[in-house]
Amino acid sequence: MILGLLREPGDETRVALLPELVKELVVAKVEVLTENSAGEKAFASDADYEAAGAKLASREAVFERAEVLLQIQPPNDSDLSLIKKTQIWISVFNPLWETVLVDTFLKKGLTTFSLDSIPRSTRAQAMDVLSSMATVAGYKAVLEAALRLPTFFPMFMTAAGTIRPANVLILGAGVAGLQAIASARRLGAQVQVFDVRSAVKEEVMSLGGKFVEVEGAVEDKAAGGYAVEQTEEFKRKQQEAIDQHAAKANVVICTAQIPGRKAPVLIHKATVDNMKPGSLIIDLAASTGGNCELTKNNESVVHKGVTIIGQSNYPAQMPVDASRMFGKNVFNFLKLIIGEEGTLNLNFDDDIVKGTCITHQGEVLNERVKSIIEKK
Amino acid sequence: MILGLLREPGDETRVALLPELVKELVVAKVEVLTENSAGEKAFASDADYEAAGAKLASREAVFERAEVLLQIQPPNDSDLSLIKKTQIWISVFNPLWETVLVDTFLKKGLTTFSLDSIPRSTRAQAMDVLSSMATVAGYKAVLEAALRLPTFFPMFMTAAGTIRPANVLILGAGVAGLQAIASARRLGAQVQVFDVRSAVKEEVMSLGGKFVEVEGAVEDKAAGGYAVEQTEEFKRKQQEAIDQHAAKANVVICTAQIPGRKAPVLIHKATVDNMKPGSLIIDLAASTGGNCELTKNNESVVHKGVTIIGQSNYPAQMPVDASRMFGKNVFNFLKLIIGEEGTLNLNFDDDIVKGTCITHQGEVLNERVKSIIEKK
Repeated sequence: MILGLLREPGDETRVALLPELVKELVVAKVEVLTENSAGEKAFASDADYEAAGAKLASREAVFERAEVLLQIQPPNDSDLSLIKKTQIWISVFNPLWETVLVDTFLKKGLTTFSLDSIPRSTRAQAMDVLSSMATVAGYKAVLEAALRLPTFFPMFMTAAGTIRPANVLILGAGVAGLQAIASARRLGAQVQVFDVRSAVKEEVMSLGGKFVEVEGAVEDKAAGGYAVEQTEEFKRKQQEAIDQHAAKANVVICTAQIPGRKAPVLIHKATVDNMKPGSLIIDLAASTGGNCELTKNNESVVHKGVTIIGQSNYPAQMPVDASRMFGKNVFNFLKLIIGEEGTLNLNFDDDIVKGTCITHQGEVLNERVKSIIEKK
Repeated sequence: MILGLLREPGDETRVALLPELVKELVVAKVEVLTENSAGEKAFASDADYEAAGAKLASREAVFERAEVLLQIQPPNDSDLSLIKKTQIWISVFNPLWETVLVDTFLKKGLTTFSLDSIPRSTRAQAMDVLSSMATVAGYKAVLEAALRLPTFFPMFMTAAGTIRPANVLILGAGVAGLQAIASARRLGAQVQVFDVRSAVKEEVMSLGGKFVEVEGAVEDKAAGGYAVEQTEEFKRKQQEAIDQHAAKANVVICTAQIPGRKAPVLIHKATVDNMKPGSLIIDLAASTGGNCELTKNNESVVHKGVTIIGQSNYPAQMPVDASRMFGKNVFNFLKLIIGEEGTLNLNFDDDIVKGTCITHQGEVLNERVKSIIEKK
């Protein structure tokens, strides 16, 4: 098969495959057509791709010749006009949320895969781009907070007196939240953590975080480890506890997201009003509305001395390792659809292939996306 | 006495005394006249200063009434035109290097103290602004490097493969260098350290850094723990070793400075040419020329994919804790010149008062500054 590796649009600095993995695909008899300068911002040159066995081409030529088109970011209108029904589009396009795009794919009869829809199974772990990118985001969020904070993270006992450690409040203990706990603890901060899933308590504690318990949370094992909607009574109690902790915090890191829905608002304007001047909120849920009422996606807002950073693409701030992890995930996924002689082999009997496939021949294959699309 | 606490100029965000220490001075019967908005950028409001017992005034009024003028940054031309011979100016003005300014003070017959000239003695430790600000700089340098680096600092073993830890090379193991070692190690990086003073080896190792030894360094106990000029033979061997380590490094943090001299150039353009694209140099010696040949003070330069950050005022990026530490240092110093009833008491028999005093009644009191001025 011919795999087209596209250059990412706009501010995206990552690339879906670094040369080291292109080499492995070439060994597996895949022809890799790389768009000129595709890896430039991730410090991978065209010469590196050529040395790995890729052929270089213009974007138009890649769209013309490739059987499979690979890009991290979703396609724009120009891409959609170029793409052919016989081609396969693989990227990350949040189909539970971006239903208009899914509709467009359906109408065009395209075969599309969204790597954020890979099932949460043990076999699929090595393909889980959400987890690997959340690892980057949790780490970077803590670093940005520490760099911007007007005080230290660690405690210091100096000749000039004692400096108290920073208080970091983390909302949501998924992969990003857990990585944020670990990173903030590494830097010496005191860490409090909220999550509606009591199952994460032990992991939070093992990383050195303090788990703040609010009784009465709704849990749903069928949600595959994700958080679910909560009762009003629970939300009220949770809100009180969050308000109290936020008022004492130097940094709040928001990571609470519910797949396919707007992110829950956990930090209201009134909560921010009571926070200390100079404190920071880093909202990783910004792309789906944010956990803070005042968050603006990809912007920094200052409200009464509190800075609210809505950053939804930290991985683009770490292009080399983020591309390395993403590439390894996508490579593991590609192995499922590459046949013995390097030919394309779409086997929909494989639950990972089927679960990751969003649209195919005018139908939605992914069950969760299907139920959301049917409700609209 | 009347102490005038001035608002800092330009980009400086710190303030020499936070309200918490103003309160203690007021208890000691000192009248504190604070310039309007002096603490604004360090999140201390005029109301906070008033609550602490300070009186607020315009800059002109502070210059008119205060006996002692306190500002972190050196005076500008406008300040120099306002200041009177009977007043005392206390700030940080690097007199071993800024000899033109010292000359101006001499000609005006001013009494000036520079807090970076406090003797390095046990009793003076609690007043050592160089150490406390170097602590901030070493910490922030590592955070900025980690935030900007296109790869992780820590090692990760994930389902998507192993991420190798970053290599951080630190030049100079003074207070900033040691803090940088500790911070980089906290974040999980591998750390190599160069210093011409073998005495620091154990401390480097105890912080988890690897001390790179180059034989034949000149050491001088009389330099009070500071580094001294080295022989040509040693410099050549050192250069070879630094070049080798820099080529493998993801981050180089430069902290090598020699009081009163231009910083030694340890990273030449040719060294940078051999560094990895995407790697970073943070040069804390930027204000005295930098340890890297390509450094520009307070600018970021990109050379063949390597970013060179010349940042000489990291403390201004952490206004609250930096002001807290600075204030505690200056408060401890002020105690030496405050008499029992809060009156001014300049006792030049005290070695700290004398050593910190740069000019007084047309003479240079500080011995090292004196010898440099006499050589010119």
